Amino acid sequence: MIGASVTRGISLTRSLLSRNWLEMAGTKAAYTTVSPPHMQREVPLTIQNLNPCIREMEYAVRGAVPLEALRIANELKQGVKYPFKEVVFANIGDCQGTGQKPLTFVRQLIACTADTSLLDKGIYPPDVCERARAILADCGGASLGSYTDSRGITIIRKHVQEFITARDGIPANYESIFLTNGATDGIKAAIALCLMEDKKAGVMIPIPQYPLYSAAITELNAHAINYYLDEDNDWSIRMEELERSLEESIKENKSKPKILVVINPGNPTGQCLPEDNMKEIIKFCHRNSLLLLADEVYQENVYVESRNFSSFRKVLLEMGKDYKDFQLMSFNSTSKGFIGECGIRGGYVEMIGFPEDLLQQVYKVFSVRLCANSIGQVVVDVMVKPPQKGDPSFELFDEERQFILQSLKRKSVMVYEKFNSIPGIKCNRLQGSMYAFPQIEIPEGALKDAHKEDPNMTLDTFYCLELLRQEGICFVPGTGFGQRPGTLHIRTTILPKEDVLGRVLERFESFHKKFTAKYQ
Amino acid sequence: MIGASVTRGISLTRSLLSRNWLEMAGTKAAYTTVSPPHMQREVPLTIQNLNPCIREMEYAVRGAVPLEALRIANELKQGVKYPFKEVVFANIGDCQGTGQKPLTFVRQLIACTADTSLLDKGIYPPDVCERARAILADCGGASLGSYTDSRGITIIRKHVQEFITARDGIPANYESIFLTNGATDGIKAAIALCLMEDKKAGVMIPIPQYPLYSAAITELNAHAINYYLDEDNDWSIRMEELERSLEESIKENKSKPKILVVINPGNPTGQCLPEDNMKEIIKFCHRNSLLLLADEVYQENVYVESRNFSSFRKVLLEMGKDYKDFQLMSFNSTSKGFIGECGIRGGYVEMIGFPEDLLQQVYKVFSVRLCANSIGQVVVDVMVKPPQKGDPSFELFDEERQFILQSLKRKSVMVYEKFNSIPGIKCNRLQGSMYAFPQIEIPEGALKDAHKEDPNMTLDTFYCLELLRQEGICFVPGTGFGQRPGTLHIRTTILPKEDVLGRVLERFESFHKKFTAKYQ
Repeated sequence: MIGASVTRGISLTRSLLSRNWLEMAGTKAAYTTVSPPHMQREVPLTIQNLNPCIREMEYAVRGAVPLEALRIANELKQGVKYPFKEVVFANIGDCQGTGQKPLTFVRQLIACTADTSLLDKGIYPPDVCERARAILADCGGASLGSYTDSRGITIIRKHVQEFITARDGIPANYESIFLTNGATDGIKAAIALCLMEDKKAGVMIPIPQYPLYSAAITELNAHAINYYLDEDNDWSIRMEELERSLEESIKENKSKPKILVVINPGNPTGQCLPEDNMKEIIKFCHRNSLLLLADEVYQENVYVESRNFSSFRKVLLEMGKDYKDFQLMSFNSTSKGFIGECGIRGGYVEMIGFPEDLLQQVYKVFSVRLCANSIGQVVVDVMVKPPQKGDPSFELFDEERQFILQSLKRKSVMVYEKFNSIPGIKCNRLQGSMYAFPQIEIPEGALKDAHKEDPNMTLDTFYCLELLRQEGICFVPGTGFGQRPGTLHIRTTILPKEDVLGRVLERFESFHKKFTAKYQ
Repeated sequence: MIGASVTRGISLTRSLLSRNWLEMAGTKAAYTTVSPPHMQREVPLTIQNLNPCIREMEYAVRGAVPLEALRIANELKQGVKYPFKEVVFANIGDCQGTGQKPLTFVRQLIACTADTSLLDKGIYPPDVCERARAILADCGGASLGSYTDSRGITIIRKHVQEFITARDGIPANYESIFLTNGATDGIKAAIALCLMEDKKAGVMIPIPQYPLYSAAITELNAHAINYYLDEDNDWSIRMEELERSLEESIKENKSKPKILVVINPGNPTGQCLPEDNMKEIIKFCHRNSLLLLADEVYQENVYVESRNFSSFRKVLLEMGKDYKDFQLMSFNSTSKGFIGECGIRGGYVEMIGFPEDLLQQVYKVFSVRLCANSIGQVVVDVMVKPPQKGDPSFELFDEERQFILQSLKRKSVMVYEKFNSIPGIKCNRLQGSMYAFPQIEIPEGALKDAHKEDPNMTLDTFYCLELLRQEGICFVPGTGFGQRPGTLHIRTTILPKEDVLGRVLERFESFHKKFTAKYQ
């Protein structure tokens, strides 16, 4: 029967004679003529015929090592014995997953915008209730259950406008601000805007990068143009390198360069760019007709006195009218900073230099997915308009915020110092963000054992797998983020609680020494 | 200066000599050689060089008429005078935006999963708190602020499994169930899976359709293959028509047919398919190697005694082992049914016939966007596991659910009867979903006035614009959904409250009579 002949299909003759086929042709079905199948029957979706862009895509943060970590964590729950009691996940910037407490104000606001009966119970401070009422008044049916404007709830977009205006000292406009589900949403939409019919869109990305970029670029059938960050100079962005990367890509001619991605503060590299450097980057984009995607989700996470976060928007707008047609998309997220609400999925994108007709096109793209989730939008509201001095919620809010930021700052130093104290490891100062990306010498002798597991396994992957299996610590191999040939790295978040992180680093050190001794 | 030379670019010679350029080459910048721009400078993104798929995409539900409605609603707020006091938005399935109250249990559960201090305050029924605790226990850091597994919170996926098992009487498996931000998310991912390198992926869609499909297909550079629903037979799906549509598309050879989309119950057409018809559709997909996308988001919205909702999954699995390699993706959403939480963005997709390796690929795609928003996942939990008889929250929950469903049922009859009572309008019985799509005779005499506004304006668009301007009623022209050549339709939701909807229909009738009299 037709149904039973899988994958490879069957001949047309046989199909026409098959019992099932004749049965169908003779049923009381409303149609009288049944044409033969139009092709050899095959399974619609297989690994072989799947969208090749998806097949080729890799996503390191949730790649082989983290998956193995999840497997081990599950086995631990089921009583399987390991040399450790639990797995410490330091692979992903999941603040609350590693112990950060949510901000009270954020959660109270979510609760009473969701259940409005709480507004009259007198259990929440008046500024929480006031904020809730203001947001709800701007929602259809005064409910977060209504679709919002596809660009986001207007009052919240206006609060983002105020936030950006105050941050940069230059007036912003909410008409250019769209709310998103985290930053990812907006970043993928930005790349999609630039796709072309006849050629791949080239997207210049830093190496090391946050692997969302390479994954999204591959998925969307765009083309990644790698530029290396200068590890010896605090992971700075050097103009020669941007020029080299662009020139080589133009020679290669695999794509038309359309976008430059800058992650500032850096992920996984933690650098915070000085304004001079940012000006050069803007000029580079300008003369090469590149849309600048500024991933600025770590703008609140800066830990060194010598560097302040400056937005690309501010630097650009201070460069004057020569750059008035410059195009910049800047992303922010409620998953990072001091908010750390990763699971809720909130964020925004601001588009600078986008004329009205183009904004309408972006609006259309956003319309198809109807709206960003409304609770995420509420959390954006707190991010951009936190309680102010004098507000009933200010004191607690500020205490919680400071605790989070100060702890991150202490951990940024702890990790930096610890890594540099271990022979064979060197780590740049974590100026910002939530990650360390130390360079690490791994004895090549280990390659033999790595290749026993998988002939394609890289040395850093094997190293991280061994660390996981022996110590229950989940770091991510540098391979997933990209690294200069001849160098190896690992990435860790600095999110685990201070005592946990301290112990993790101790165990890491002892593992590293044993591993090195074994394979040297 | 380079910066001042917009769009059209400048000659290489001039650029090398320009003051700005020389300045840059001579600054203290870290690089010493500055290459000339690699191309004539142009603005990175313009309407002309924008991704042509995005430029061509249309999205009718938020198209020209709804945008005009928004504009008028804003003007009304600002005191501009119109012959009506407010705009009634009947263009989009926005339950709470048109007055539906959220379910108490849903909102209490959101509130206490967000603010866990509410769990101990004794203000919520014990089953709410129990549910909250069970969900939180399955979240990283016991918080909805953590990233969830990219497929969704495990306990919720297991509840979806139980729901599907009970609904169909055939065991489901949570490993094939992924949670999404509404259904849209999953539908776009499904189409993306099927894209090919060398040819466009053909997606068969019903006409009339929910315009998300045509929009997503255009955006993803796939190819829509239209098949017409049979309006004279309750918008049923006829096999001759599927065959015709597929054959013509194969002759045309613009794409390789990969997917068949069925919306059941129908949007905007409201039909609920009988099992015999569904079997034929499955056989058609099977012999033509098509992935079946079953948009089943209105599965709770069926209003006639003669039809029950059957899932494609149930019908398929009862067809036996001949179809064991059949592939089906079924979508559900918290935006519809009796939940109606559109803004929260919750939903799920179940994949049937997807082997493990393929599920891993889908997992990877979902990983890139990290996770569906966690609050939406919580609402999915209520949708698939509502309070049961005997639970403290059952009585109120059931009362609220019945009120919503009964009111929708009454309105489905009200709309059907009213439309059919107006000369020149005929409307099929609304068997399910939340929309009516009546056929309407519009005098061609109106075309002259339509073309005065815009030479490309269709008759139904002009009609809907006039309805909006004269009565403040926002219906959507059939053009946006597709209709057989020579026929014209309008679409309305049945969501406004009963008294509002009653008045809307009266005003519509009087408008229609005046309009017809004027142009006949």
